[in-house]
This record gives sequence, structure tokens and C-alpha cells, in this order.
Amino acid sequence: MPEPAIGFEDVVAAADRIAGAAVRTPVLTSPRLDDELGARVYFKCENLQLVGAFKFRGAYNAIARLSPQQRSRGVVAYSSGNHAQAIALAATMQGARSTIVMPTDAPRLKRAATERYGATVVEYDRYAEDRIAVAQRIADEQGATVIPPYDHADVMAGQGTAAKELLEQTGPLDVVVAPLGGGGLLSGTAVATRALAPDAAVYGVEPAAGDDGRRSLAAGRIVTIDTPRTIADGAQTQFLGALTFPVLRALVADVVTVPDESLVQTMRWFFENLKLVVEPTGCLAAAAVRDGLIDVRGKRVGVIVSGGNADPAAFAGYLTGGA
Amino acid sequence: MPEPAIGFEDVVAAADRIAGAAVRTPVLTSPRLDDELGARVYFKCENLQLVGAFKFRGAYNAIARLSPQQRSRGVVAYSSGNHAQAIALAATMQGARSTIVMPTDAPRLKRAATERYGATVVEYDRYAEDRIAVAQRIADEQGATVIPPYDHADVMAGQGTAAKELLEQTGPLDVVVAPLGGGGLLSGTAVATRALAPDAAVYGVEPAAGDDGRRSLAAGRIVTIDTPRTIADGAQTQFLGALTFPVLRALVADVVTVPDESLVQTMRWFFENLKLVVEPTGCLAAAAVRDGLIDVRGKRVGVIVSGGNADPAAFAGYLTGGA
Repeated sequence: MPEPAIGFEDVVAAADRIAGAAVRTPVLTSPRLDDELGARVYFKCENLQLVGAFKFRGAYNAIARLSPQQRSRGVVAYSSGNHAQAIALAATMQGARSTIVMPTDAPRLKRAATERYGATVVEYDRYAEDRIAVAQRIADEQGATVIPPYDHADVMAGQGTAAKELLEQTGPLDVVVAPLGGGGLLSGTAVATRALAPDAAVYGVEPAAGDDGRRSLAAGRIVTIDTPRTIADGAQTQFLGALTFPVLRALVADVVTVPDESLVQTMRWFFENLKLVVEPTGCLAAAAVRDGLIDVRGKRVGVIVSGGNADPAAFAGYLTGGA
Repeated sequence: MPEPAIGFEDVVAAADRIAGAAVRTPVLTSPRLDDELGARVYFKCENLQLVGAFKFRGAYNAIARLSPQQRSRGVVAYSSGNHAQAIALAATMQGARSTIVMPTDAPRLKRAATERYGATVVEYDRYAEDRIAVAQRIADEQGATVIPPYDHADVMAGQGTAAKELLEQTGPLDVVVAPLGGGGLLSGTAVATRALAPDAAVYGVEPAAGDDGRRSLAAGRIVTIDTPRTIADGAQTQFLGALTFPVLRALVADVVTVPDESLVQTMRWFFENLKLVVEPTGCLAAAAVRDGLIDVRGKRVGVIVSGGNADPAAFAGYLTGGA
């Protein structure tokens, strides 16, 4: 077995680097849900993180790990989602230029937000070009550093700081549940939980339309799927990372899946009960707990609410009954 | 001048009573707003309080102040809003029965929520009966205690615990801004702020359609108006309280008003930037700051976000452009 890409010492170091920059996000509870489940559920609200998602943690940590010379040459990322905004803001806060490679048909709002955080956006045609190749070409031209969205030790360690904080805020937990896309958040979560609550069971949750993570753990190798059709756009990954997979395989108890309808119901539940705006991907872990897919009775449960960047029109549709 | 109804010692005692029952709500900030305003704005998130509003604080404190014998005979309130849910939950948590007097045409969702928290709902015809008289008759029959929504010393002291917590969480502030309906929240806020940040200016914000508070302070007496037509349903009061008015007159720097359009824009702003669900009344203070009605440049500003019980369909309409 190869050495795992990160250990808890990397999460601790990342926490030191992001202290004062990232928000120490609050943990909220719902007495009513606790009554219904016979459990005590703690929601770690990363939708209240800078840029509205946990992604800021990994992005900030990865950029902080660059040498001054590397940082002066800037960073490049390929994303039309939360990683783009996270890299843009984390770079600006650390005095680095950032270039984000986005498809020509990326939502105008997401592009505007990324530019507002200080990034230069470069478009590519996603039917004719490969975004990783485009990003690497720009990086080569500028001497800049590409920061991938999940399969990178510094990104994984940064994402693990959310679970570290959660366990510091709540004390011991029996179960920790996080969304699963490429595995950056879940691998960091698992490493932090193993260190701080060794007996806790860590679960990943992915959309039913794209269960490559569950299949990969079952098969013992990385399974690749077509881009899944789901409203959980932060978990539309086709395969786990070469660095995240071994960590997940070693430390994650199980991966479960939830249908989009459950994500919509959970968005409404967060609206009505916790007064929080949560994007579909951010509802994955909570939906699995609410749907009874994970045994939580009598247990203390941590749920990572990963992000809140919901499109206003789509959110309005979900509130009024659309699914 | 009569003695003011409450002093800071009452707020401190209330804070002790509600400790462990109420949520110590988080304080959130927006770096982007701070840049725009040249200020540092701290949002005290009472939408994340139990029952989704600060009202829980005053309700819990008032019921805790009853003698065991009084508590055993139950409490009565007249409200179709957040006070109803607050009394219902606070009573249930303290082993008291509660009866809530609501109009026959109260929204079904609000009635259901109040019953879920353990209250008995009694309907009255608001075109033929007076709700205060109905509540008093029920109280007389049961030997129960009526707990009014704002003009009551224990309610005022309880509401003041939000500002006390805020100042403990942020350190000194130069400006504190709170919504103004009947004056329960604002009077408690002013008393707590005077004690903990004596040089801070306290502002009240009411809907433009119902500026009885501003007019009352200007006239030096309580001015009564018709029920204002505004989406800020928690501030549709016709007059300040006999107990709240003297406190406001002594301690509040000014009262400003905002139109409903600003409340809608601020609801959207909270959605997009802080990922919070805030009801129209809860947007009053933030809207005044965003609209530049209060001088905040170079200052440390506390803003009380009073509640998050927004109707899903109405909220969806605001998100998609309705006003």
C-alpha cells in the first residue's frame, strides 16, 4: 500500500494556515429533528463559509503552501463552480493573480462572482477542448501553478479542517457524514475524524444518479461513469481521485446515495427549520440522515452542510413544489 | 419621569434564565458589504434562534419568572406570528400549558407550527371580537397568565439578551440597529447597549408604511396609526407600548424607515451573500444600513436580524423578482 496522501498533521497545519482567513463556521441543531430521529445531529454550516462553500479552505491552504516565487506567478484552476470562486478569493487575499478556465456556456452569475473575487476568466469550448489541457497550457505560459479541485494533498488537508473544527465544537461524535464528489472533502473529513474521534463511523453521500464512489469502494478500484444528471452539481464527478480514493478506501465506513427528490425536500427542510440557504450538493449528507439511510438512533452525529450557492430561480422553484 | 420598566440587571437576570434553553446565535459578517460601506457590520442572527425569531427569549424569560403555581395554571397569548410560536415552545419546555388566541383566518402553516410546539389554539373572529378581551377571558377562566407580545418588563428584558450576547461576541460597537414594532426588542437592545457600550448610538427601523415609532419620538407621546400595509408583518403595530416608549425615548438616537422594496432587496441580499433565510421584518435593520440611512462609515456596527419565518411561496416570489 502506498503512503496516504495526507495525515492528520497536514490537517492541523492547514488549520493554522487558514486561521484568521476562513470563517470558523457555526454548528446548528434542530431539536425537532433530534426528537424524530432519537439522535443528536450537529450541522456544520459550511454554506456560511467565505464564498459560500467549504472549498475556500482547501484553496486557501494550497495557495498558502506555495513558495513566494510560485505565488508571484499566480494560480490557475478549471471550474465553473465553488472551487473557481474559492481559488479567486483565496488568491486575491494572498496577493496572487488567479486565472479560472470556464466553459463558454458557464452561468453568467457564477462567472461574474468569480471575476468579482479578482480572477481573470478564460473561456474554452467544452465540446472541442479539454479543460485540464487548457489550464495547463495557461500555467505553462505564465509559470503559474494549477490547483486541481480535489485530487491534491493540500486541498484535501484544507477541506479536512471543517471536520476538525466540527469535532472541536461538538466534542466526541459517533457518526460523521459528508457529501462525496471527487473525494476532497470526504477524505479530509475522514482523516480528521479518525484522529479526533477514532471510533466514529464516517459516511459519504453521493447522488443516486452518479454512484461511482460507492461502486469504486465496492470494486476496490476507481470506477469511471458518465457525467451524472443530478441537481447536485458539485458532485457531478466521473471518478474519484488517485489520491483521494486510497484514503476513502482505508477510512470510510460506507457510501450511500440519495435521489434528487430527497435533495429538494432537504433544501425545503433547511429553509423552514434552520433558516439556511443550502445548495443541492450541500443537502446530500443531511438528506441521507433524514431519509434513514444511516443508523443514527441514540448517536451523536455530525453532518457537513457543504455549500449554499443556490441559483435564486432554481431555489424558488424548489420552494414552490418543483423538483 | 417614572422609573424605566427595566434596567440592565433585568437583562442580565434574563440571560441567566434562558441560558441552556435559548440558542446563543452566531454573528456573521460580509467582507464585501464591509468594503462597500467602509464599515465593519456584525449581523446577530436571531433567525437562527429557536422558533426562528428573537421572540423566544422574551417568552421564555416571562414564563420562567412566573411562580410554580402560576406556571401550573398555564399561559395565554394573542398572536398569529412569532410570539405565538415562542410562547408555545417556551411554555412546553417549562412544563406549562399554553393557549394561543388566533384569528379564524390565520395562515394554516402558522397555526400548525404553534400547535406542534404544544399550544392549544383558540380562534376568534377578528371582525367581531377583540383579541385582548378574548385572551383575558380565557385567562380568567383558567387562572392562567396573559403574556403580551411586547409591553411587559420580562418580555423586554428577555429581548435585550440578544444585544447583550452580540456585544459579548463582537466587543465594543459604535452603532446598534434593531427593528421597531411595538418596541420590545428595541427597548431591550437599548438598555443592554447603554450598559455595555455606553457611547454607541442605538437606532430603530420601522416600515415606511407604519412610522408611528418615529412620529411618537418626535411628538414626545405615543402616536397611534391605522394598521400599516407592509410585508414586514412583525412590525404592523399601531402604537408603541406604555412601558417601551419611555425607554426608547430615553435611549434611542433615532428611528428611520425603509420601504418594502428595500426589504425585498435585502432578503435577496441575505440569500445570495449570507445564505440566510430572513423574513421581511428581520430585514428592517439591515436594509437601513445598506440603504445608507444611518452613518456607519469607519464604524463598528451591530445589526439585529430578528427572524427567519418567511412564507415559502412569498419568499420564492421575492427571489424571482416580485416585490
